[in-house]
Amino acid sequence: MSKKGIAILGATGSIGTQALDVIRAFPNKFEAIVLTCGSNAALLIKQALEFRPKAVVVTDSFQYSHVQDALQGQGITVLFGEAGLIEVVQYEEVDMVLNAIVGSAGLKPTVKAIQSKKDIALANKETLVVAGELIMALVKEYGVRMLPVDSEHSAIFQCLAGEEHNPIEKIYVTASGGPFRGKKRADLLQVTKAEALKHPNWSMGAKITIDSASLMNKGLEVIEAKWLFNLSINQVDVIVHPQSIVHSLVQFQDGSMKAQMGVPDMKLPIQYALTYPARFENSFERFNFMDYPTLSFEKADMETFRNLALAYESLRVGGNRSCVLNAANEVVVEAFLKDQVGFLQMSDIIEQTLDQVEFIAAPTLDDYLETDRIARVITKEIIKD
Amino acid sequence: MSKKGIAILGATGSIGTQALDVIRAFPNKFEAIVLTCGSNAALLIKQALEFRPKAVVVTDSFQYSHVQDALQGQGITVLFGEAGLIEVVQYEEVDMVLNAIVGSAGLKPTVKAIQSKKDIALANKETLVVAGELIMALVKEYGVRMLPVDSEHSAIFQCLAGEEHNPIEKIYVTASGGPFRGKKRADLLQVTKAEALKHPNWSMGAKITIDSASLMNKGLEVIEAKWLFNLSINQVDVIVHPQSIVHSLVQFQDGSMKAQMGVPDMKLPIQYALTYPARFENSFERFNFMDYPTLSFEKADMETFRNLALAYESLRVGGNRSCVLNAANEVVVEAFLKDQVGFLQMSDIIEQTLDQVEFIAAPTLDDYLETDRIARVITKEIIKD
Repeated sequence: MSKKGIAILGATGSIGTQALDVIRAFPNKFEAIVLTCGSNAALLIKQALEFRPKAVVVTDSFQYSHVQDALQGQGITVLFGEAGLIEVVQYEEVDMVLNAIVGSAGLKPTVKAIQSKKDIALANKETLVVAGELIMALVKEYGVRMLPVDSEHSAIFQCLAGEEHNPIEKIYVTASGGPFRGKKRADLLQVTKAEALKHPNWSMGAKITIDSASLMNKGLEVIEAKWLFNLSINQVDVIVHPQSIVHSLVQFQDGSMKAQMGVPDMKLPIQYALTYPARFENSFERFNFMDYPTLSFEKADMETFRNLALAYESLRVGGNRSCVLNAANEVVVEAFLKDQVGFLQMSDIIEQTLDQVEFIAAPTLDDYLETDRIARVITKEIIKD
Repeated sequence: MSKKGIAILGATGSIGTQALDVIRAFPNKFEAIVLTCGSNAALLIKQALEFRPKAVVVTDSFQYSHVQDALQGQGITVLFGEAGLIEVVQYEEVDMVLNAIVGSAGLKPTVKAIQSKKDIALANKETLVVAGELIMALVKEYGVRMLPVDSEHSAIFQCLAGEEHNPIEKIYVTASGGPFRGKKRADLLQVTKAEALKHPNWSMGAKITIDSASLMNKGLEVIEAKWLFNLSINQVDVIVHPQSIVHSLVQFQDGSMKAQMGVPDMKLPIQYALTYPARFENSFERFNFMDYPTLSFEKADMETFRNLALAYESLRVGGNRSCVLNAANEVVVEAFLKDQVGFLQMSDIIEQTLDQVEFIAAPTLDDYLETDRIARVITKEIIKD
């Protein structure tokens, strides 16, 4: 069997580096054809020299020429920006595109990859949050696989193996609750960036860690799950599970539930997306019940963590609402990380943005991109005021 | 699609009556072709008049003529004893034999059903405990399905759907711990039959309820699982889970674990065995996390509940050991239910029987039947002394 050719969009991030660990562990099974980065040129160069991909893409204009210089004469094509991403996902040698770009910038490369009949390993949940209906229609049209990398969606996907013919009654997306679980709004008025960045269970990038603290990550996951598994909004429930051992659950129409479990470690869902439907033997840490003698579950507090309520509401209204929600969230999280807005303000600003961006009931891809652009402008204006 | 013809061996017991509930709920999918009972003739007659099977079998000689009289002129054949069981499982109209007979009496009908190319829904775990190696070889030879009905084995079987190609690393068979969980040997010296019959979570027949209290049920399930899923003894672990919500778990070679969960209700695994690979919509009670905000797990106490250690040991030694274990257990449970032996004595007597019955390394079916017979004789002698 020939090796599976992988394009890793966002190779220098948390997901990207762990994906390269998997490729390194199974050199006869996988080949990195493409690696891309935003601004972490130093790491990309190192990765390129180790994995010898056909091409790399740099999206930060300040770093592009630096990478060009460093890889000169290595036989590795160096491309720039979105045009570069669009080009590389079409390479014939690429069988699967692992999209681990942060934010809605991942949307267009995903579309082009699907249209080029590449299987998608999706860590960029924003792709489905922004344009889930459109993307899943393309997945169907082009007959490709959409393999989730998020631990929750991977859990559900794993539980659905062999159950394709059995209707889902509902799914439970588990949430750790983040560092502020149990807090009320009054407790959260003064929380700092440093506190929000301390996730109790998962080691992840900054943006998703803030999203976890604000429960927006869970909101985005609810939206992602709705599209990925073709569910109605009432079929997607969130349950807070502080230990992050049960990664999510499916309930079938006979009442039987399946859960996927394990220690919190993104390497497993990343590997599964690459190896599916097989499971490759590895030496990842195994779960031990004696380390977790109790697993607990509680309701999500949508009054304190309003982002989750906003996410459900944007799904309920439909159209371009989730796109607005996501764009506004990307802007406020960046502002929060720059100490420009407070923790609780984030939901308020997102809500104001949702009020101000024009509703489009059945958006095209261009409508989504324009909605995304305008929502960012409006959110930034609200922040400035 | 024509209806699936079901022969229910042990129709009047807990499993049998619930299986008839499923058949009653899906009259266009299933048809009861055969119903059998031990001594509960009154219920069998009632069932026969409702479901109009082709035949019924009565294994209690005192009840046989009574059933004959009651069903005279109804166009329902009434047969007697083991010969009757052997005959009916061969009926052409039978697609699946649900074996819900209690104890090793279920062995020969299972063998004949497999040889007649019938799928087996196995509630009679003793079939696999006594002669697992032989039975699973027959299952393979005749190309039939062996569908577990025990909730734990059904859970594992459900978790293996779509994973047939992925090696199992280990399984966890969950145990409620029974009514005496947490007790030590000193606490168990004086326990009564009534106390042992009070299972905290499951409503089941008397024999299996006592086995649950003594952890022999879990021991038998370990043996059953070993054969059913083709595992080595080190791959089968027991974890005590007092809430009985997680019905068992599988850990694959990539470290990922799947669990099957739900409220403790035998109707679900019974229905799944009948409908597999489909899941039929039903109105069984759904699990609600808010009813079980914590799920807990602990090690099994094999010093207090020595039956579990004896079961592992009998698997380790192999040959006819599990057959001896099972036969001795059937006799001591019956004696315990008649107040002839104490709760803790049961393990001691089983161990003595294991010491006294000749070891056979590679038993034939006749060897198993003879071992079963001799072990019972010896166990009874030990009890009398």
